[in-house]
Formats: sequence, C-alpha cells, structure tokens
Amino acid sequence: MLDADRYLKQAIALARENVERGGRPFGAVLVMDGDIIATGVNGVVETHDPTSHAELVAVRDAALRRRSPILKGAAMYASGHPCPMCLAAMRLAGITDISYAYSNEDGASYGLTSAALYADLRKPFAEQEMSFTYRPVRPEGEEDLYVQWGRMQTG
Amino acid sequence: MLDADRYLKQAIALARENVERGGRPFGAVLVMDGDIIATGVNGVVETHDPTSHAELVAVRDAALRRRSPILKGAAMYASGHPCPMCLAAMRLAGITDISYAYSNEDGASYGLTSAALYADLRKPFAEQEMSFTYRPVRPEGEEDLYVQWGRMQTG
Repeated sequence: MLDADRYLKQAIALARENVERGGRPFGAVLVMDGDIIATGVNGVVETHDPTSHAELVAVRDAALRRRSPILKGAAMYASGHPCPMCLAAMRLAGITDISYAYSNEDGASYGLTSAALYADLRKPFAEQEMSFTYRPVRPEGEEDLYVQWGRMQTG
Repeated sequence: MLDADRYLKQAIALARENVERGGRPFGAVLVMDGDIIATGVNGVVETHDPTSHAELVAVRDAALRRRSPILKGAAMYASGHPCPMCLAAMRLAGITDISYAYSNEDGASYGLTSAALYADLRKPFAEQEMSFTYRPVRPEGEEDLYVQWGRMQTG
C-alpha cells in the first residue's frame, strides 16, 4: 500500500474513533521524514472550541512539541477536505503537501462540507457575508505601533 | 469616542504590550452586547504555535468560557487586518462584524501583511502553491465513515 493511503486510513480510523466518542468525523495525521509527528481529531463537540479541527490540532501539537511554528517539509493527511481555517493554518506553518480522503462533495449530503464558506471567502471582502471595516485609529501621543515594532526588530 | 474606536485602541494597547514582551504587534478584543468577552494577543514567538494569532486566541477563549463554538452577535476589533486563518475561524464561529485598525498595506513595509497568502488562497486549489490531493481511500470491510456518522446523528 502506498504510504499516502496508509496515512489516510489512519486519519479515517482516528475520525471513526472520534465519532464513536460522540465527536465529528474528522481526523488528521501529520508526517515528516517518514514519521508521524502529530495527529488530531475534531474536538468541537467535546471542547466547544470552534477552532478544534483535526488539522489545526495536529499543526498546533507538532509546533508545540518541536518548538517551531514552521513545519516545512511536513505532509498532512486529513480524512476530510480541509476547511479554509485549517488550510490557512497549514500554509502559515509552511505545510504545502496536503492529501484528503473525503471531498466536500462526498460530505455535502451530511452537511460535512466547507464549500459554502470557501465560496464566500473567495469573494472580495466587501461582497462577503460580513461587515469588514478598516478604521485607521491611532492613539494620540504614542509612537506608532508598527514603527515601534520595526525599531525593536532592528535594535 | 465611538465604541468601535475605543475597542480598537484597546486592541492596539494589547498589541503594544505584546511587543514590549517580545511578541508580534497584534491584539484583538471580542465584544458581545457591550461587554468584552475575550481578548487575545499574538503568541507565536512565545509559544511557537503558528495558530496563536490574536483573533483566533480570542475566539477560542470566548468559546471555551461560554461553552459554545458559536459566538453569533459578537464583534471583533483587531489591531491588524485579520489573516485568512483568523477570518475563517471567526466565520466558523458565526462572527460577521469585524473591524481592524492597521491594513495589510499599513504593514507591508514591516512584513506585517497576509496579502500574499490571501492572493494565493483565492486561486483555484490546483493553482495554489501547494500539492492538494484528493485520494478517496476507503478502508475495506468497514461501514463508510460518513454513513456511520449520519446514522449516529439520526439514531
């Protein structure tokens, strides 16, 4: 069996165990240099944390244990199509090798799809289903926040 | 002073305190019904967690304390333009009222912008700077994961 298929089966097995505990059917396996460096399952039902998605949990766990926010070279195997939050989290961590076993179409009839959110987030900000407002507030009498930060980087 | 400006100044003050502790210049204030229900700062430098962004931290904290992954009606005030991960996290939590004080353009010369990631994530998946592969692996001899989940929802 291909390694990719083996890892995806592990991600599905994690998702299944999570379902049996009352959770949502999502699991993820993060691999680097042939080793599983972290796994995750969807913990939204159990923890109430809306960011507790399988892939994000695996990214966080790997980063904390490796003491590095960058996980370049890691490959993510997710049971389901990553949602926009998880995809962006992986990209922030430098993860660019992503495989998944269930598509948004596979999950659509179960409500297990992020296709609608993806579609909205692809629109220009002003056309998305939200109010997104730039208010360039600058506290008076203080050094500008970004100038301060820039100065501290070079100092 | 408008409430929005006051909350944005608080977000900037949180960001500034974070910079003084060696962190990145991002803070966020989450408000519901006129009360601040959570705040967050960027903890990436301190924790090594690449998902420890101000807005995501505030969403998680509010959800954990309210024991609900849905924070409909909350308004986010962020010092900087939310990144794609944080924007999606807010949308997953039902937060659709978002204001920010520093734009990606304001931050560009300091490297404090997620514009490039936004631009890539707006492309079709196959054109993004990643390998994104659907492998419809299905373990043999087992009930399908999503069928199992669907059965347990209605059962």
